[in-house]
Amino acid sequence: MPHSEMTTGRLEAFSDGVIAIIITIMVLELRAPAQPTFPALVKVAPVFISYALSFLVAAIMWVNHHHLVHAVRSVTARLLWSNLYLLFWMSLIPFVTDYAGKNYREPMAVALYGLDLFMCSTGYYLLRLELIRQSGHDSALREHHERINRKGAFAAALYLLSVPLAYASVYASFFIFVLVPAMYFLPEKLVGE
Amino acid sequence: MPHSEMTTGRLEAFSDGVIAIIITIMVLELRAPAQPTFPALVKVAPVFISYALSFLVAAIMWVNHHHLVHAVRSVTARLLWSNLYLLFWMSLIPFVTDYAGKNYREPMAVALYGLDLFMCSTGYYLLRLELIRQSGHDSALREHHERINRKGAFAAALYLLSVPLAYASVYASFFIFVLVPAMYFLPEKLVGE
Amino acid sequence: MPHSEMTTGRLEAFSDGVIAIIITIMVLELRAPAQPTFPALVKVAPVFISYALSFLVAAIMWVNHHHLVHAVRSVTARLLWSNLYLLFWMSLIPFVTDYAGKNYREPMAVALYGLDLFMCSTGYYLLRLELIRQSGHDSALREHHERINRKGAFAAALYLLSVPLAYASVYASFFIFVLVPAMYFLPEKLVGE
Amino acid sequence: MPHSEMTTGRLEAFSDGVIAIIITIMVLELRAPAQPTFPALVKVAPVFISYALSFLVAAIMWVNHHHLVHAVRSVTARLLWSNLYLLFWMSLIPFVTDYAGKNYREPMAVALYGLDLFMCSTGYYLLRLELIRQSGHDSALREHHERINRKGAFAAALYLLSVPLAYASVYASFFIFVLVPAMYFLPEKLVGE
Repeated sequence: MPHSEMTTGRLEAFSDGVIAIIITIMVLELRAPAQPTFPALVKVAPVFISYALSFLVAAIMWVNHHHLVHAVRSVTARLLWSNLYLLFWMSLIPFVTDYAGKNYREPMAVALYGLDLFMCSTGYYLLRLELIRQSGHDSALREHHERINRKGAFAAALYLLSVPLAYASVYASFFIFVLVPAMYFLPEKLVGE
Repeated sequence: MPHSEMTTGRLEAFSDGVIAIIITIMVLELRAPAQPTFPALVKVAPVFISYALSFLVAAIMWVNHHHLVHAVRSVTARLLWSNLYLLFWMSLIPFVTDYAGKNYREPMAVALYGLDLFMCSTGYYLLRLELIRQSGHDSALREHHERINRKGAFAAALYLLSVPLAYASVYASFFIFVLVPAMYFLPEKLVGE
Repeated sequence: MPHSEMTTGRLEAFSDGVIAIIITIMVLELRAPAQPTFPALVKVAPVFISYALSFLVAAIMWVNHHHLVHAVRSVTARLLWSNLYLLFWMSLIPFVTDYAGKNYREPMAVALYGLDLFMCSTGYYLLRLELIRQSGHDSALREHHERINRKGAFAAALYLLSVPLAYASVYASFFIFVLVPAMYFLPEKLVGE
Repeated sequence: MPHSEMTTGRLEAFSDGVIAIIITIMVLELRAPAQPTFPALVKVAPVFISYALSFLVAAIMWVNHHHLVHAVRSVTARLLWSNLYLLFWMSLIPFVTDYAGKNYREPMAVALYGLDLFMCSTGYYLLRLELIRQSGHDSALREHHERINRKGAFAAALYLLSVPLAYASVYASFFIFVLVPAMYFLPEKLVGE
């Protein structure tokens, strides 16, 4: 299969389509409560909060994906399949979001949420490894990718940590789920970049 | 995160994808009545009407979003996240539409619908604030954006009003929900522009 | 609202997105039978056939929509809203398909299917009227659009006929639903063009 | 209907939209288990595995579709409708995936999965036949397409074989479902190319 012909435009358009759908279908899990009472609405709150959090996580992933694709020099088979690997784990976000939202006090549901976000992080890691490979002799670019990859590896480590942590306290895991997106909004200097 | 590289084309394509899905998945809430009788169909009518109204609202938002993006000079982080903030509230339209359609006589369901449209309006407001900021010394352009923003602020105020109003009379809120889209179709002179 | 700035590219991309979703979400109504037996599968057959028919109808609409947009000279407000009007009725195809598929012997369900396809036809009619208006002094182009519009009006008349006909015989209506797509595949000479 | 005007760009964008949705809505069938226990999660495993397999199959189809469209010289009516025929069978993948995932020990459910993938293969076959036709006197290109088509025909034959085989042993069919995607990842020399 000669993949070299593919342009980043197509890769980007397809990934965007998949991410746009992932972000939007999550809302289908938000079932309108049977009764229009305030207590019934409050019961939906954890599902809503998990939806909002996953929307934020997926939005950050979309922004990062965009920057990443911009740096691509050639669409190799390795890049293409790393991207599809990432999209696979991202496509599970609506499932784990729904599961964790409905069982937010259950370690397993929370651990599964963290596990899927960790798997997404490994997808980004693979994509960036390929970018570093493509940087060739351009040491400035190489260093730029390596620096971002260290930040990504830190986020991945936190997500991995959230899996066993959920069995100690689900709230500790939730703290991580809020911390990682926050890392992307804090001034760059504070997070060592 | 250097956002400056993003083109408006990508921002537009992604937003379009999300809005197209929002508009289309709402129809999934229109459940075919179990029995093929006229009374059974009539029961679906409020859900259908709320679908039609939300389709119209989302269509107007899409048209406005398009004009707005056309005026963008550079895709700053502020613009990007204002846009994602808007898409988040828009993504809840299918949920509040379904909820209000099935409980159209319940103040809380109607108030929630108004609240979500108000939140969407704040998203547009933030986007236009950023556009005004980008206008720089071009006072004609600045004035153009400020004029549109006044109209938007008026629509936002009406949506906000619909929230408490629903507890007095849901029909008063529905009047607002029909009035705001109508404002966009009346001859410009009548709405003070 | 100055619509003149919109390009046909955006109109096309958004319409394509909506049509792609319409075509695809219909399959969600195809519920896997609870038991893996042949009789259980046969019960799904009418829903499958109605899905296949609607896929074909929507595919033809997509092809026609594409040709239509290609002839657009400027994206006027009238064109934009005619298009959104068409997409609204198209967005109901999954609903009427599901309803008719599950109640294919019930006149009302079949009539509703015909009614929605008729409303879609009126959307095309409005779009083509606007194209004829845009043709200006180019009489060859004008005639081309008028000829296609006659064919479209014929299809619309057939769909309108299928509504009362369903109360006489649902099979007569189904004949129309198969006949109209066939018209688009028969050699052009046979259908008077 | 003059199809000649259509560009491959539009064909590609529409197909991409449909494939992106197919890939993503499959995850909606992954229902979160009612109880957050490990045994409850294990019950979801076959549905998850069938999802992962179908994701892989659809991803390979997307990559192949992309290469195929790149070789298109003119968008003829034959090409357009071969493509829509392919998308129709692809759109059933979420349905057969769900059915086979929930009834993975039932020959009929597994046979249906194989049948749909076989029908998809016939879609690719038709598309490549049209490409061979378009190759004209370019014998090198013609041979390239014919070689790929032989590989495709081999995959199609395997999928067709999986249909009766499911009645002997569903595991034999599953072996085929894993074998065919693997064929696309093995070094080209091993699969005779």
